[in-house]
Amino acid sequence: MTALKRLDHVAVLVPDLEEALAFWQDQFGLLLDHVETVSSMAVKIAFLPLGESEIELVQPLSEDSGLAKFLAKRGPGLHHICIEVEDIAAKLADLRSRGVRLIDEDPMLMDDGRQLAFIHPQSTGGVLLELYELP
Amino acid sequence: MTALKRLDHVAVLVPDLEEALAFWQDQFGLLLDHVETVSSMAVKIAFLPLGESEIELVQPLSEDSGLAKFLAKRGPGLHHICIEVEDIAAKLADLRSRGVRLIDEDPMLMDDGRQLAFIHPQSTGGVLLELYELP
Repeated sequence: MTALKRLDHVAVLVPDLEEALAFWQDQFGLLLDHVETVSSMAVKIAFLPLGESEIELVQPLSEDSGLAKFLAKRGPGLHHICIEVEDIAAKLADLRSRGVRLIDEDPMLMDDGRQLAFIHPQSTGGVLLELYELP
Repeated sequence: MTALKRLDHVAVLVPDLEEALAFWQDQFGLLLDHVETVSSMAVKIAFLPLGESEIELVQPLSEDSGLAKFLAKRGPGLHHICIEVEDIAAKLADLRSRGVRLIDEDPMLMDDGRQLAFIHPQSTGGVLLELYELP
């Protein structure tokens, strides 16, 4: 079984990134690495490193997106966690063979070389779980 | 400002620990460190280390507890995150002075020497946030 390496990040869904940073950065004291707009996913994300992990604050930019609907339905707060694995293709194949329901059958390749895939909360007991393989 | 050290754990609220372990341990491949019953909080917790963090699976043992009510209302899934700080008393004092709403005004001292306190989700933007100071 391919290795599970570390908790890469915890994603927090927020309606307003500036307001969220007023807590996590200004009041709580996390350092802001950078803010990135990911047009393809209609989100703006703030990356706040913490040890070997990150807190990611995610603001939906479109009212039609799944994230915006999640936010409207459930309110702001914890959205998903992401775990770095050694070999994401092997991990997905292994999970599939065990009957785990995947959102992404194959890893998506990002511009920076990262590969990622989501596992369905139906199989995890309510947790939206993302996997990363880093280049 | 006292240092924020690492993400200690992510807590997942589950109705049935055995069923949750069937995914996180047997299918997903995390290693189970141990299971502990905390009578004072009416919970059974499974600890699954991952890098410098842990995934904690939390099963309420009483139907009256706040956790059981949260589970009934929101369903199973992500419940809170815990961040290790260098000096929890200093951190709480600092947060209080910045107007952050605390659940625990003073840290609670556990039998193992750990000190912990919760910050109210109203101040964090919907995230129940726990702080640890380890002995």
